Amino acid sequence: MTVATEPLESLTTNAGSEAVNPSSDVLRFGADKPLQLDAGTLLSPFQIAYRTYGTLNADKSNAILICHALTGDQHCASTNPVTGKPGWWENLIGPGKPVDTDRFFVICSNVIGGCMGSTGPASPNPATGKPFALDLPVITIRDMVRAQAMLVDHFGIDQLFSVIGGSMGGMQVLQWASSYPERVHTAIALATGARHTSQNIAFHEVGRQAVIADPEWQQGRYLEKGTRPSKGLAVARMAAHVTYLSEAALHRKFGRNLQDRDAPSFGFDADFQIESYLRHQGLTFVDRFDANSYLYMTRAMDYFDLAADHEGQLAEAFRGTRTRFCLVSFTSDWLFPTFENRAIVHALNATGASVSFVEVESDKGHDAFLLDEPVMTATINGFIMSAAKSRGLAQ
Amino acid sequence: MTVATEPLESLTTNAGSEAVNPSSDVLRFGADKPLQLDAGTLLSPFQIAYRTYGTLNADKSNAILICHALTGDQHCASTNPVTGKPGWWENLIGPGKPVDTDRFFVICSNVIGGCMGSTGPASPNPATGKPFALDLPVITIRDMVRAQAMLVDHFGIDQLFSVIGGSMGGMQVLQWASSYPERVHTAIALATGARHTSQNIAFHEVGRQAVIADPEWQQGRYLEKGTRPSKGLAVARMAAHVTYLSEAALHRKFGRNLQDRDAPSFGFDADFQIESYLRHQGLTFVDRFDANSYLYMTRAMDYFDLAADHEGQLAEAFRGTRTRFCLVSFTSDWLFPTFENRAIVHALNATGASVSFVEVESDKGHDAFLLDEPVMTATINGFIMSAAKSRGLAQ
Repeated sequence: MTVATEPLESLTTNAGSEAVNPSSDVLRFGADKPLQLDAGTLLSPFQIAYRTYGTLNADKSNAILICHALTGDQHCASTNPVTGKPGWWENLIGPGKPVDTDRFFVICSNVIGGCMGSTGPASPNPATGKPFALDLPVITIRDMVRAQAMLVDHFGIDQLFSVIGGSMGGMQVLQWASSYPERVHTAIALATGARHTSQNIAFHEVGRQAVIADPEWQQGRYLEKGTRPSKGLAVARMAAHVTYLSEAALHRKFGRNLQDRDAPSFGFDADFQIESYLRHQGLTFVDRFDANSYLYMTRAMDYFDLAADHEGQLAEAFRGTRTRFCLVSFTSDWLFPTFENRAIVHALNATGASVSFVEVESDKGHDAFLLDEPVMTATINGFIMSAAKSRGLAQ
Repeated sequence: MTVATEPLESLTTNAGSEAVNPSSDVLRFGADKPLQLDAGTLLSPFQIAYRTYGTLNADKSNAILICHALTGDQHCASTNPVTGKPGWWENLIGPGKPVDTDRFFVICSNVIGGCMGSTGPASPNPATGKPFALDLPVITIRDMVRAQAMLVDHFGIDQLFSVIGGSMGGMQVLQWASSYPERVHTAIALATGARHTSQNIAFHEVGRQAVIADPEWQQGRYLEKGTRPSKGLAVARMAAHVTYLSEAALHRKFGRNLQDRDAPSFGFDADFQIESYLRHQGLTFVDRFDANSYLYMTRAMDYFDLAADHEGQLAEAFRGTRTRFCLVSFTSDWLFPTFENRAIVHALNATGASVSFVEVESDKGHDAFLLDEPVMTATINGFIMSAAKSRGLAQ
């Protein structure tokens, strides 16, 4: 096991090179530390790209693991080297913020299967020297968490003060609490579910087929062939993006407003503002994300079903847990509606777990967990402060 | 103006030839009868493919016009010559059914812009002899209705006993009642809205971009080039199909059930039943529908905004109407939710119109209007019988 630290200054301008030569810290696991995958095989060697913020205290009791969502990455609280934009959760993480980096040591890693430096389908396959493409085994949420646990081991941390994430990140939080209950003091899961629903699988399948339908996808071997399935990936992103918003948010933001004109053009250009917005979302996404990683990430979410690992009894996934849970849902989130979150609360209650649950009134849809939602922020802040006090990490 | 009647026996096996050589009755309008389009140009010559069922009575008071939805056609109550399947609304239309063909003369035409024999993007452009492709002006709901009015004129019918349709068909119903109030005795609009919402435009834009992203689309000139954007169109259909169903219906029908196996395959084949169902929907659609027509139909719906034609006052679209209205929405229809239908009811009430409104409890989503929904059927039956009695068409 070796640790390589590339400087942040070595910025790259596309996801492809970031996948192979990341600008983050990288932890490499050699033949002595393979990653056991749910697909039944070992991944070895493999690497994890990660960022940390703040300082680990002497007794290593102040570590918080942040788990990113489908298209997120390790740059949760600092400028993203690919896009040049602020970290995706700077609302929540930073000095004096609810996840206070003056107080906590924050770790955020790119998930296995991702494209920001952790081993994924764009990484070289040691057996061939060429990119894995679809020869990488399918990755599950549990595989991601297993790799994160190895990263946490590397820091010598026995127990995380908290594991926090939304959407696919929330799935990882639940998996952490289920797989390693003694290693998770508190778990904060937002806008998520203990399984992916049929409708969610359906939307993911549409996105995958959009990628696969693009002839430049080349059976997944586009990196070798020098092509890029950008059009297909852009369509996939557009379809997904609609599901991240709510009808109310779209109506408020765009309505039926026309793009820079008073009357419709009677053509197929982007006439409505919502159309040009979506096209922009599609186009910018392909600059920062690898198409095969998109297939792997969506597949991991589709396969997630925590109850299925316990003969359909979700409560059994948390039996005997002493972790303190905080769950947050959003009224207009139709990908992970409140009733999916409530099912987790019921299961936790059935095991006698300590659980706080808040349904936040918001019209911002699924994406609300990434946005400035004061009730969410206050909930997380209060929950963390209370737990920190009981641990002597705050007064 | 000439009438050509091809026999139903001349069945074809794909939408392409059906578009050029339809197996339905066809009404051709020559240079003396151009179609005025909202895009500002005249369409001439043009043709309408249609089916009729039942017999027009002596005083021509028993005619019902059926308006089809996005991917529907004129074969509402008899076998579809392309798919070999029953007519798409045989639940509702036929001898002894709510739209009783023993009593009424039913007309159903393929909309202008369609691909089942009415003039559309696959039709030859008289100026070039080649298919119109995107040289056909954009078609609006009002254009479709204007063409239908010319078809109704052809039969010498002054007033339709009823105009009936769901979704895009419902938009046509509302447009008929607004454009030709004196020609519509009753109007039955199901699962529709007086405008297309931002979210609906967004999903349509995803579908259009999926088609356009397919290199075989060839800037729309695929028929000349001998290619077919089948993959793009299949993806578009898959995305749309998810929106026609409800989460509850998907959960009931498919849940997270796996396809012919006990454990996930850890691959990207259709592992879940919902995936293979969606792929099937995409693949069968491309056999019966023209990709450019899909662009035109979705655009027509996007442009529909009845209030916008009346300075934002929907009630003004129906001012002074004597038409009797029946509106039906479905609780799980998230494309045209009840509040969109209720906005129409409010506008009609504001004009003092006669309006019946029923929200049907159903978990079948938007597609419910095409299915056997007993409350919907009873509502339509009661409404039609009542109106027929007052007209002396029933006892």
